[in-house]
Amino acid sequence: MSTIELGCRLVYHVEFETSFIFQISVLESRHQVIEQESLSFQPESDVRMARIGNPGHRIHRLLVQPGWFNIHYSATVSSNPAYIPAASLGPRPHAELPAEVLPFLNPSRYCESDRLEQFAWKTFGQSSTEHDRVLAVTDWVYNHLSYAPGSTGPSTTACDVFLQRSGVCRDFAHLSIALCRALGLPARYVAGYAVDLVPPDFHGFLEVFLDDDWYLFDATRLAPVDGFVRIGIGRDAADLSFATYVGNSSMNQLYVWASETGDRPRTVDSSMAISLG
Amino acid sequence: MSTIELGCRLVYHVEFETSFIFQISVLESRHQVIEQESLSFQPESDVRMARIGNPGHRIHRLLVQPGWFNIHYSATVSSNPAYIPAASLGPRPHAELPAEVLPFLNPSRYCESDRLEQFAWKTFGQSSTEHDRVLAVTDWVYNHLSYAPGSTGPSTTACDVFLQRSGVCRDFAHLSIALCRALGLPARYVAGYAVDLVPPDFHGFLEVFLDDDWYLFDATRLAPVDGFVRIGIGRDAADLSFATYVGNSSMNQLYVWASETGDRPRTVDSSMAISLG
Amino acid sequence: MSTIELGCRLVYHVEFETSFIFQISVLESRHQVIEQESLSFQPESDVRMARIGNPGHRIHRLLVQPGWFNIHYSATVSSNPAYIPAASLGPRPHAELPAEVLPFLNPSRYCESDRLEQFAWKTFGQSSTEHDRVLAVTDWVYNHLSYAPGSTGPSTTACDVFLQRSGVCRDFAHLSIALCRALGLPARYVAGYAVDLVPPDFHGFLEVFLDDDWYLFDATRLAPVDGFVRIGIGRDAADLSFATYVGNSSMNQLYVWASETGDRPRTVDSSMAISLG
Amino acid sequence: MSTIELGCRLVYHVEFETSFIFQISVLESRHQVIEQESLSFQPESDVRMARIGNPGHRIHRLLVQPGWFNIHYSATVSSNPAYIPAASLGPRPHAELPAEVLPFLNPSRYCESDRLEQFAWKTFGQSSTEHDRVLAVTDWVYNHLSYAPGSTGPSTTACDVFLQRSGVCRDFAHLSIALCRALGLPARYVAGYAVDLVPPDFHGFLEVFLDDDWYLFDATRLAPVDGFVRIGIGRDAADLSFATYVGNSSMNQLYVWASETGDRPRTVDSSMAISLG
Repeated sequence: MSTIELGCRLVYHVEFETSFIFQISVLESRHQVIEQESLSFQPESDVRMARIGNPGHRIHRLLVQPGWFNIHYSATVSSNPAYIPAASLGPRPHAELPAEVLPFLNPSRYCESDRLEQFAWKTFGQSSTEHDRVLAVTDWVYNHLSYAPGSTGPSTTACDVFLQRSGVCRDFAHLSIALCRALGLPARYVAGYAVDLVPPDFHGFLEVFLDDDWYLFDATRLAPVDGFVRIGIGRDAADLSFATYVGNSSMNQLYVWASETGDRPRTVDSSMAISLG
Repeated sequence: MSTIELGCRLVYHVEFETSFIFQISVLESRHQVIEQESLSFQPESDVRMARIGNPGHRIHRLLVQPGWFNIHYSATVSSNPAYIPAASLGPRPHAELPAEVLPFLNPSRYCESDRLEQFAWKTFGQSSTEHDRVLAVTDWVYNHLSYAPGSTGPSTTACDVFLQRSGVCRDFAHLSIALCRALGLPARYVAGYAVDLVPPDFHGFLEVFLDDDWYLFDATRLAPVDGFVRIGIGRDAADLSFATYVGNSSMNQLYVWASETGDRPRTVDSSMAISLG
Repeated sequence: MSTIELGCRLVYHVEFETSFIFQISVLESRHQVIEQESLSFQPESDVRMARIGNPGHRIHRLLVQPGWFNIHYSATVSSNPAYIPAASLGPRPHAELPAEVLPFLNPSRYCESDRLEQFAWKTFGQSSTEHDRVLAVTDWVYNHLSYAPGSTGPSTTACDVFLQRSGVCRDFAHLSIALCRALGLPARYVAGYAVDLVPPDFHGFLEVFLDDDWYLFDATRLAPVDGFVRIGIGRDAADLSFATYVGNSSMNQLYVWASETGDRPRTVDSSMAISLG
Repeated sequence: MSTIELGCRLVYHVEFETSFIFQISVLESRHQVIEQESLSFQPESDVRMARIGNPGHRIHRLLVQPGWFNIHYSATVSSNPAYIPAASLGPRPHAELPAEVLPFLNPSRYCESDRLEQFAWKTFGQSSTEHDRVLAVTDWVYNHLSYAPGSTGPSTTACDVFLQRSGVCRDFAHLSIALCRALGLPARYVAGYAVDLVPPDFHGFLEVFLDDDWYLFDATRLAPVDGFVRIGIGRDAADLSFATYVGNSSMNQLYVWASETGDRPRTVDSSMAISLG
């Protein structure tokens, strides 16, 4: 159990009336309890909260008039991830996958798993367990990609990244997801906050379905996995923009923070699989 | 109201134990009532039905041993589409879209709407209503693509089709969906049966969210839209294979049929929008 | 006949020894006579001139040591383009094309003509003459692309541009070339200087082989075609970087200029085809 | 020195008058001397031979009327490749490459070397000599691609093949070429005949410029490199179709053969580099 203080502040200049959707509030779940939370807008606006997609997801929608516009979100979260010995995770053949995880085997906009099957099986097909296979994938991604801000853009896909061998957190996650799906492992994209991420920003990572639950993985190694706080879950980053808008606006500032209060020894190694449920 | 007899028969040769998922049963909904239905397998197999994705979806899962394997599905469906005067469909600005339709604005594996925005707005931006805009899109797709079996494959995307100007029903649907999403209109892929489709096969078409419901469209003009019976709904064809399998099998035969009993004058023109709910 | 003063100045910072190839000197040809020319480097360097590719091409090669490095090129060119009435240009069927122009029918790195054939024939197949067909292509490119600096990069191809509908001069040329080749018209990329180009920069345009010579075209309409001075000719921009280098250097400044001395009425319209030979 | 008997027979059905270009005659060079040669057409046709591209290239052009059409080519070639100890090939830094080989550093339609640079340097950057680097590339291609007829098509590129990990000789050559160019080694595509190729067909391989000459390589290992007879050389397969035509025709039969007379022990190993000049 740890307590994480997190939040973000975004500043926009709105030229013409703009319809915004923000997805910055943390997901409510058993392993991730919101102790305290505040969301404020300046100028004050008429906000509607909606639930969409995965249980616990919240989005905030509002129509903003021209001028400067600020959003400030902060939360105190009790994070209580499950730590499961990786060795205890049994295999889960295709015929026994729960129906609700099947869509996460399908290729998606930024994760063209259908184009990477031969590579995936040749490279990772020998791992002895499914958990080992995921570690082999994320180790491979870590070792073969350069973390290079600016090297990719919003339409960059897993295949692009596989070719160019560089990207940012979103790209590392997309390629890992595509490779897992190519191997028959359901995998999904997670957007969230990450304690001690340098430089501070929203983070993108992945969850893979093993045995009977979703487990967290991150090929970037930029922050401890059990310090992640989830905002939302989707097929890939196409489902999880922190801000979507229709109109004419531009973002001028973005601050994101996440820190843990109290000190907790991080002794997590790859023999433990971590789940936020 | 019409009564549609439909079904399919698939024959596989299974080399090694194979885990199959079939999505061939029609979707249960208010406008599409299943009067009678049968699903049989030869040799008899232990089948599990599961519900997945959209309400009314059913998939059938089974583990098949080596040898010949047949599936036979038939159903009698009362189809009662809603016919709504297109002129009565009001606009639905982004800020007022129901939260549950928002994911169908996102780009997906085979519908890269994010790469077609400039073209879409320049070409279709002048339509006076949203319904007209969808008709302009599907007319454009009909007029600019050749229907050419064999010209595309399982990894062909809307952008590929936009370049090469040929494809089959799935490709016509993907490009129409991508263009609608690029225009801010939620759009989804529908797999189903189609009365009087020549040659008989499964069919792929699209639904677009207008005013307050999903309406059927089809850029191929190969069969009457109000003779469609839906199997399932998804982001694109990646979500809707009639058969998915893991193992080693090959399909040897595929028969699909759909016909209407009684005769019903089809007077539908583009002034009426058609919904199956 | 006109006299054009042109040149460029490039400033690099060289981190480690770098092997440079510059292609900035104008091409020597009958229609484009070099009256005066100077090329200087600071610090002074041991430069080798080489002839490569098309007759008249010159490249300059040198090995540069760490530090600041300047190149200054200036030339006075008598430009004497041939003005041919378009109506006099006869057809040139495939069987009668000179062997040496055949390679310019092949697709190239940035001009994937093989993927645009159906579109090209459907859209431009009705033109009555080959010259009209090229004008139809360049008019189409002008009317359907936005000129948008920053919207494309060094690996952007004609197909990318066809999808995204924006680009810079190089992209306008690549798409025009790809469409001409798809129509069976030999087309090549030309890099050069352009009188009155705003903002001043190197320019990229195209030449198409009609009847018995290569004629200049430009889909950007940013500068008068008969004020172009050619540096070089190639399959596409891959063959014509103004600077190529192996080592570790960065360009800090780039100035390009081209102006005509004396005033010459420009009355050129599309009924005249212009050739620099 | 060996004597190779080779040839091909192609049968077309011509629907409408068709302009054909054949490139099936072997290249004339010092190391590859044509002892005897015959080229015949049925029905007899008015053929024009032209020289295009590389010295020694010959193409044959003819206009064919509707009906059946046959081409028969056969040649006896004295092949006398140079065998150079790989260890004797010195390095050739960028600044010292002959100007005429520089275009073979540029990316081309099917060899997008510009997209594979990071991978190439990370994977092959440690080789001690340039010859070793090329062997590392062709070994890698051999070990990571499956030779799978039907897995690729005419528009498949090196990047496609790098993703999908399968292809035919042309694809093996394209990927090898792209990787060599990414490493700063001039590389070109070669079409030709290959002794003992199974099944018999035209073959595609590559040449890389090392020290002061072009050397043969082949990542498929389907036939002995010193049994290759070159037809032509180009940027990639876009430059080297054995048959190009404009009109309406279809190929019905294709026979290709190449065999060596006399027996010559093949003891070639990778310590010898082989050149046809």
